Order: sequence, then C-alpha cells, then structure tokens
Amino acid sequence: MAKTLRIIPLGGLGEIGKNMTVLEYGRNMIVIDCGVMFPESDMYGIDLVLPRFDYVVKNQDRLRGIVLTHGHLDHIGALPYLLRDVKTSIYGTPLTLGMVKRQLEEAHVIQQADLNVVRENQSVQLGPFKISLFPVAHSIPDSVGLVIDTPVGAIVHTGDYKLDETPAGGRTTDLKRLRKLTPNGTLALLADSTNADKPGYTPTEQTVADELDQLFAQASGGRIIIATFASLMARLQEIIYLAEKHGRKVALTGRSLEENIGLARALGYMKIPHGMLVDIDADVPDGELLILSTGSQGEPRSALNRMAQGEHRSINVQPGDTIIISGGTIPGNEQEVGRMLNRLFERGANVIYGKLAHVHVSGHGSRDEMQAMINAVQPQYLIPVHGESRHLYLHARMAVANGMDSENVFVLHNGAIWVTDGERVWLDQPIDAGDVLVDGRLVDEVGEMVMRDRQRLSQDGFVVALIPMDARGRLVGEPQIISRGFIHLKESGGLLDLAREEIKRQLKHDGRNPHETVRRTLSNFLYRETNSRPVILPSLIRV
Amino acid sequence: MAKTLRIIPLGGLGEIGKNMTVLEYGRNMIVIDCGVMFPESDMYGIDLVLPRFDYVVKNQDRLRGIVLTHGHLDHIGALPYLLRDVKTSIYGTPLTLGMVKRQLEEAHVIQQADLNVVRENQSVQLGPFKISLFPVAHSIPDSVGLVIDTPVGAIVHTGDYKLDETPAGGRTTDLKRLRKLTPNGTLALLADSTNADKPGYTPTEQTVADELDQLFAQASGGRIIIATFASLMARLQEIIYLAEKHGRKVALTGRSLEENIGLARALGYMKIPHGMLVDIDADVPDGELLILSTGSQGEPRSALNRMAQGEHRSINVQPGDTIIISGGTIPGNEQEVGRMLNRLFERGANVIYGKLAHVHVSGHGSRDEMQAMINAVQPQYLIPVHGESRHLYLHARMAVANGMDSENVFVLHNGAIWVTDGERVWLDQPIDAGDVLVDGRLVDEVGEMVMRDRQRLSQDGFVVALIPMDARGRLVGEPQIISRGFIHLKESGGLLDLAREEIKRQLKHDGRNPHETVRRTLSNFLYRETNSRPVILPSLIRV
Repeated sequence: MAKTLRIIPLGGLGEIGKNMTVLEYGRNMIVIDCGVMFPESDMYGIDLVLPRFDYVVKNQDRLRGIVLTHGHLDHIGALPYLLRDVKTSIYGTPLTLGMVKRQLEEAHVIQQADLNVVRENQSVQLGPFKISLFPVAHSIPDSVGLVIDTPVGAIVHTGDYKLDETPAGGRTTDLKRLRKLTPNGTLALLADSTNADKPGYTPTEQTVADELDQLFAQASGGRIIIATFASLMARLQEIIYLAEKHGRKVALTGRSLEENIGLARALGYMKIPHGMLVDIDADVPDGELLILSTGSQGEPRSALNRMAQGEHRSINVQPGDTIIISGGTIPGNEQEVGRMLNRLFERGANVIYGKLAHVHVSGHGSRDEMQAMINAVQPQYLIPVHGESRHLYLHARMAVANGMDSENVFVLHNGAIWVTDGERVWLDQPIDAGDVLVDGRLVDEVGEMVMRDRQRLSQDGFVVALIPMDARGRLVGEPQIISRGFIHLKESGGLLDLAREEIKRQLKHDGRNPHETVRRTLSNFLYRETNSRPVILPSLIRV
Repeated sequence: MAKTLRIIPLGGLGEIGKNMTVLEYGRNMIVIDCGVMFPESDMYGIDLVLPRFDYVVKNQDRLRGIVLTHGHLDHIGALPYLLRDVKTSIYGTPLTLGMVKRQLEEAHVIQQADLNVVRENQSVQLGPFKISLFPVAHSIPDSVGLVIDTPVGAIVHTGDYKLDETPAGGRTTDLKRLRKLTPNGTLALLADSTNADKPGYTPTEQTVADELDQLFAQASGGRIIIATFASLMARLQEIIYLAEKHGRKVALTGRSLEENIGLARALGYMKIPHGMLVDIDADVPDGELLILSTGSQGEPRSALNRMAQGEHRSINVQPGDTIIISGGTIPGNEQEVGRMLNRLFERGANVIYGKLAHVHVSGHGSRDEMQAMINAVQPQYLIPVHGESRHLYLHARMAVANGMDSENVFVLHNGAIWVTDGERVWLDQPIDAGDVLVDGRLVDEVGEMVMRDRQRLSQDGFVVALIPMDARGRLVGEPQIISRGFIHLKESGGLLDLAREEIKRQLKHDGRNPHETVRRTLSNFLYRETNSRPVILPSLIRV
C-alpha cells in the first residue's frame, strides 16, 4: 500500500446525493465531503440514506481530516452520523463550516469535530496531501473545488460547479487559479457529472434575476410569494435586492430559510438593508410585500403547501397574489408539486412555475461546461463523480468522443478502489459500500426484508388469523381474523366470514401443519376473491 | 330541465386522465369519452381510477349513446366498468372502435355494447344531438374532435389535438371542416388544456422522424432498440418506414405493442412491407435489426426493464446497442425510468433519452395552439377540459388575457352542472363525482381509511400484541408480539422483549381498559425507542 495513491468513492459515484470520497496515501487518509441522500419513493418509511463509511470508521487512526467543498446536505449531511464514531478535524470555507457547526450542534456531536476555516484561495497540508481551494460558481456561496497535491501527482476535485460568467454574487469559477495550482499538470480529474444529459451550457443565474425583475414589475398591487430552496443563498440575496428595487419589504416563512439567512447574514454572506426584513404578520400593504417561503418541492408540511391547503398560520392566499416557484422539481416530487400548484390556482393566485417563465436555472454545468473543464485541466485520467450511473457514463463517453483515451477514463462504483503509483493505474478489490438506510433513530437496522414487507403492506395490507387450538393441535372454537389496509372492514365482513369457514374446512382435512394450512388457505381464498395478496400471518393460540 | 342544455364533466376536468363528459337536453343524454386514470404514487395498491359515473347508470333510460374521440385509455378505459351496469350504443372511428371492441371482449361485456362506426367526416343523430366529427392531429390515428349541434346552439369538443402541420401520417387538424360545421357560430368550446403550461407551439412530429433518421444512420453495426408507447401508432409507422430505409428488419417485444400493431394493420391504419416484421428470436445480424419495445416508463415487468435487469427471454443488451427512449416520462415515473436507464448504461448500451436528442414530442398542442383554436372557433363560452386544475386555470386566463370576457370562461370541477337555455348560463347544484378507486377486482370498496392504513403500514409496518386474559379480564401468561415491516426481527428481539415487560407492568397498574392500555403502552414505548409509529393492534384472547 505504501507509495500508492488510492481513491475510493463511498458515495456520489453511481448514486445521486451522498457525496463522499476517500483518498489514501500510505497510512494517511483524507475524506472529501460526507453527504446524505434523500430516499427514493420505494424506500418505504426511510428518512435518509447514508454512505456506508465503515471503512473510514475502521481506519480512523489514519484519518488526517475531512475537507468540504460546500454546504449543501448532499455534501455535508452525513457528518453528524460519521462523527458519532469518529473524532477528527474538518476543513472548509466559512459559510460551509457555519452550516456544519449548526448541524453538529443539533446532533450533539460538535465536541467530536475540530473545525478549521480555510479561505477560498488558501491551502492546508494534511499529512502527505496539500489541499488548495479554488472558488467555483454554484448555487450556494463559498463553494470551492480542490487541488490535492500528492506525492504521485495532483488530483483536481471540482466539487459542484458551473461555468457561469454572470452568477448571482458575481463569483465565477476560477479556472485561472486552478491552472496556476497545477503547474505540472493534473494526474486525475474528479468532475461533477450531474447534468451530463443536458446539452450545451446551463443558462446563467442572471436570466433568473432578469425574469424576476420583470415579474415583480407586473405584480403591481398584490403580494409576491417566492418559494425556493433555502440553500440557494445567492439567489435569495438577489431576490432581496430586487425587492428593494421594487419597493417591497421581505418576510420569511419556513424554518430552514430563517436559519440559513440568519447564518449567511451573521457571517457576512448576505446583506439585507436595514428595515427591509419584516415579520410575517407585520402590517404591510400587499403591494409592498414579498414573502420568501420554503416548499418548492410540495413537501407536505412546508410553508407553501400549508398556504395551498389553507392551513398557514399567517398567510391566506387570494386572487391578486403572484406566486413564483423558483426551484426545479426534484425527480419523484412531481405529483406532490402538481397537487400543490392545483390548490394554489384554485385559491385564485397567479402561479408562475416550470416553463411558464425562466425562474430557475441549475447550479450545475451542462455538457459543454463539463467538456470545457476537461479541456482546461487536461488531466491524465478522468473519474466522473456526482451523478447516477447514466450521468457518469455519459460524462465518460463525451470525454472519449472528444479525444481522451478510453483506457484513461474510469466509471467507478461506490467502494471501488482506484490505485496509482503515478505511472500505472489499477483497481484493487472493492470494499462494501452499499446504502445505509436511516429510519427514525435506527441506522442500518432496516433490512431488505423489512422493505419488501412494507412494499407489500402498502399495496394490500395484512391479515392476521388467530387460530385457537387445544394441546393436541386441534381447532377449538372460532378462528379470529384481524386485518388492516386490506379492504374496507364494513364491506369485507361477509368475505372474512367466508374465509373463516374455509379455514375451518381446510383444517379438518389437513391438520398436520396447521400454520401452513391456514396460511395457504387464506392466501388462495383471498386472491381468488379479491385479486390481491395481503401479508398473511397465522398465529396458533393454545387455549 | 326541459329546454336547457346541461354539460356535466365527470372526469377530465380538475384531474388528469379519465376523461368523461355528459351532455343532456331534456330527457336525452349523451356521454363523450369514458377514460381511466392511472393511480398516483400515494394511492397505495390501487390499480386504476375511474370517473364516478353513478349519474349515468342511474339515468341510463335517457342515454342515447356514448361518443368517443380516440382510442387512448384515458378516453376509453372505463368503458368495461360502465358497461357492467349499462347497455348502450357506442360511436367512434374505426380504429377507436377496434380498440374498444378488444377491451370489451377481454372484460366479457361486449354484449352490452352496440358498436357503430362513424367516419372522421360523418355525422350521427342521437336524440336532439347531431354529432359531426372532424379529424384532429394527435398521437394515435383516427382521432377526432366533435361538433355537437343542440337545440340551443353548437358545442365544439376538441378531443386531444395539436395543430401540427407535419404530423406522422400527414393527417392535420381540420379547422376548415370545423368552421364549415359551425355556420352559426359556436355556443361553447370544450378544449384540451393538457399543455397549458407549455409556451409556444409543440414541435411537430416531423422533428422526431428527422432525429430518428439521423440516429439510425449513426447506429451502424449494432442493434437499435426503441422504447415507446404502444399507443403512439403513427410514430410506430414512421419508425417502421425508417427501419426499411436503413435496411433493418423489425422485431416486437411487449404484448401491448404486438396487439396494437396487429389491430392497426388489420384495420388498414398501418402498413408494414412484406417480410419486414421478424420474430424476436430470428437470426438477423445486429446491424440489420430494429427492436420495438414497451417500457418507456420503466414499468417493472415491461420488456425494456427486463432487458435492463438482464431478465429478457431473448435480448441481452450489450455494447454497440443503441437504445432510444421515444416517449416522455409521465410524472411520478422519473425514479423508475432513471434506474432503468442506469442499468442499460451499465450494460454498455448507448442510450438516447430526455434532452440528449429530440426523440419525443407531445401529442397535445401548447399555449399558442390553444389560443389559435379559440381564435378559430370564436366561441361564446369557453370551458377548458383535459388537464389538472392548474392547466384549466392557465387555459382560462390566457383566453381572458387575449380578450374573452372572464364571465364567459368557466373552470368546472368534476360533477359541476353547467346549464344554458341558449341565452343565459348558470350552474346547478353539482353532483358527487369523486374518484372511484379500483383495487384488484374490487371497485370502490377501498375507502380513505384503508388508504391511510396502507400509508402508515408502508412507513413503519405493524405490531400485533396478543394478550391472553382470563374470564375476569386479568393477564394470564405472556403477551405475544407479531410484527412485519417494522424493524428487522433479529435485531429487534431485545426491543420486543422490553415491550412485553412494559405491557405487563402497565396492565398491572391499569387493567380497566386493557385494550387501550396495551395500545397506548406499545405506541409510546416504540415511539420513544425507535422514533417510528407502526400500526398497533392489541388483541385480547380469552384463555
């Protein structure tokens, strides 16, 4: 292991979200990012998905620190879980660490972390790794990419970025600094693949500002309500400037917005003119008020969805209100967002969403930007990161189509071990890096069988049959049936009576294995009668 | 009721899919379309959603017939259910009726229907209603709109349409015939709103043909696999022409494709050159084969998803294969489609989807087309149909913004009764027109409580506690706990032991209402220990 550099993706390769990468050289390890993923719709009852970071926990004596690229949850959200078992130093820009600090405090693991601010144009030495930051344009301020000098060559990790020339806040991706940091070229480029299926360039954030400016001018006498991600802090700043321009005060609703804006102001990343921010219940004329709200994803308890359902404490949506959804819909949320929009329209509001106006752009570069990054860095090896499999493959193929040798481009799955001695590259036996599911307080105790049961329960419910038996295993008295989520009980009374009769009849025929007889009888009977397959649990009761 | 025309939407207004509209004049009723909706993701275990057509069943003595606009399931799919209770005549174009016939035969209700072919330029008289068809361009051949002459004026129902000047098959929307059919103007226009949130014009189907032509030219030596909707018959025809042009045979996989193509050929709506269609297992070189497949929505058992999972009987996806997803993703299917795409990429295929190429266009007109239809018809009243609430409102507001009097534009919910005597318009008391959920063989027996139970079961599973009691209601022996979908049983053994102890302790304290004591005890204990709320069912057992 000595004298080789090892790169091990634990998340963020092959799965969207939960970005995490391990770099090792000899007996030295650093970790880049430590994010969570939000569950997909068939992860029943799951709250969060973590990278499987057992390898880091097991080898924590080698860990020199964790370096963060920016403060989004898919890059920092798993830290509270990792820090249950690991005590270490964490490095990042001021806003990123501000968000981490709040998170670790809430999880009561702050004492496990030594937080170290590194500015966007500074470097830090961690064992054999010299890590230099460079600014990147992304949808949260203070985002950076990393140049990691190792004994075998320089590694570039882009973080999340776009090559926006007119981003909110004016902070562009600093390719000049990146090139200056790699005077001897780049051994490997780990680059964001999120938008590898989007042709061309991602539109600049300026298009959103221009469009909002126009919409604000048209809103005239009514309120403006803008729902966006609390993490799009640069856009929030832009909206506040525009509100000032159009003579509107700003009120906030939604905890994450209040927290993020509070933090960004405290750290100097957001400027709000004195007196602009008002309480949501303040007495401000409709035409002079702008409300920033959470809920762009239609989350059931979010501020905007409560408005849609007429359940918001302070805001009663009405004709004349202009509501702008300034955030893309995350795949899987389309139906919830659609229903929320329906309700807002039904309340008479003028709702701007989707393709009706340019009120959202992605924070990630598209294909032409990804190719421009490869051209700027000219890496010896390319390792696409951040995206699902299809994005990694599309990124890789684009690089090859544009001239990279296909043997120098690596699509890695989580747990793969990419090794180089600076000359050759090979893959070691991968480590286990499957998803870790978090359900309530329980981490990793929800196995595949539980998932399968929940899936079946969600479709057809369950039926428990209590079978009273005597000591000799003979039915005594009446079987009893309990069910939920199967069919409506009032109407199913007759059906369950028939099921009981069927059980009694079958047990008379075949009482050798009453548990199996009851299970099979009920299963067949209910499928025949209803075409559905509830979870069936016989329970033999000795009376 | 005499001397008034009543329009009652039962589906298709306020909800996507399940289109159905009732028209009444005096004691005469006609029904336009009778569609199903596919369930949203939180309709646990539901197979289909029907319009609530009780009103039609109850008043079937007045029913003069059902008129269909085209053969898509959201316009004809509920007929097998309606015809369980209603015997009537059905009118439509040849292909539409061909699809209906197959459906009714499969459901064994064909004897309830008297099927009457009406050609796209013909009329039919049903009581006081004279219904004249006009061709519209849509994604299935033989689609029509309707002009319905009533004693109080002409009603225009667009069906699903776009104003495509170069549609597949060359059959454009015949606005000339529409105008000729309404020499005295139009009282009310019922118009498709599906794409009311899409600015401009929907691209022509010709863009898809051009793009496919190019992609076919690039595919060179490998197979081409195209996944599309079996109902996009005009596009299927175009693909078959292109396959011929590029020297490829065509094989089919997926039952709905085979059935639809068989039907369209038999009725003369599709022409396949002799010898072009080959069996999926035929010995054809890869570079000379095109495979048409179902599965553009990532449906678990569809042909393409089976290929993705390596479970297809005949096709093993491999590097060199070009796979084209020629169909939009229906909201709610994004995650399943994404996972299927990931797997296809992992097998080495070149997959074209989404924005990577123009391989799909909508069959519905966008905002400019919707406005052009209003301008062409110049109706006195506008009633937007086909779409969710937001689409209906956006359609209505566009009409008003372009000059219609807002009092003449009606956004109606299902069950609303729009009445006119030709002079005035008013709304009568609405009838009940909620969703009817179909679960397996059961129609409408799955109530809201069952849905709520399934939702909870899907999140946290269930726990049944069996409490043995004597005749005096005292605990005798040990409580027994059965659970599924809660937490992994191996690891939860200790937890459930503790739960049992807690139940015994609490029952000793408070045995007056043991059922409630056990429920409360378990609920509190499990929430405290795991943060989750399984469905809890205590069962007291007399021993």
